[in-house]
Amino acid sequence: MDEISKFLGFKKTIPFVVSKDVYNAFQKCSCDFNPLHTNVVFARLKGFKECVMYGNILNAFVSCAIGEQLPSKNVIIHSQDIQYKNPFFLNDKLEMFLEVEDIHESVNVIELKFKFLNEQNVIVSKGHIQIGILL
Amino acid sequence: MDEISKFLGFKKTIPFVVSKDVYNAFQKCSCDFNPLHTNVVFARLKGFKECVMYGNILNAFVSCAIGEQLPSKNVIIHSQDIQYKNPFFLNDKLEMFLEVEDIHESVNVIELKFKFLNEQNVIVSKGHIQIGILL
Repeated sequence: MDEISKFLGFKKTIPFVVSKDVYNAFQKCSCDFNPLHTNVVFARLKGFKECVMYGNILNAFVSCAIGEQLPSKNVIIHSQDIQYKNPFFLNDKLEMFLEVEDIHESVNVIELKFKFLNEQNVIVSKGHIQIGILL
Repeated sequence: MDEISKFLGFKKTIPFVVSKDVYNAFQKCSCDFNPLHTNVVFARLKGFKECVMYGNILNAFVSCAIGEQLPSKNVIIHSQDIQYKNPFFLNDKLEMFLEVEDIHESVNVIELKFKFLNEQNVIVSKGHIQIGILL
């Protein structure tokens, strides 16, 4: 089977946990200490129940999904987008629904869509990823 | 001055270094060990001079830019997109050019655009971010 055919009809549900380790590692990577993410008093003043997690933790999870969970490791991300629909919080268990949307075989390009849902089945974010197959 | 007026004409150049610490922290956050990012033999087989850095490290830098470098800390990301134009590598020094593109005062929404350039002035990535002002 050629590399791109493996993606026909591909869809997968991938669990992620926004653990303290994930939060700390993202903070160390980004050096983003905005009070919404680090100061519970500030977060509550802004109407949230606790510190809001960094939205871009989800893009780190996207990186994992593309790098580790596809039918081939021979991939590279061309572009991606994400919309944040609802906040998520420390220790939230999220499920990512990842699905191939379109395959452009002549240029070895695949478009995927994804959404993250929390345990209450509330949509946290959604978006798209375009990848190329590395030959 | 009200919160949103501070963004009128805002633009900023922000330096970032893709240090070993950044790389390690991103890897710990994402658990993405795709060989393109971890195995130099694989990366060379695919035509790159060394391991390609995770594109989503740039989204961690976007998080920092939005959380730390704007005229107000009272912000939250609504959505963002990024296109990867050229690979970047460990220890690359990047400059991020961040600029307000549009302000929608009646809904407290601001659109920004950005690009990352490497030391050779080659564009590494570009994209957009929509933020909301937290009142």
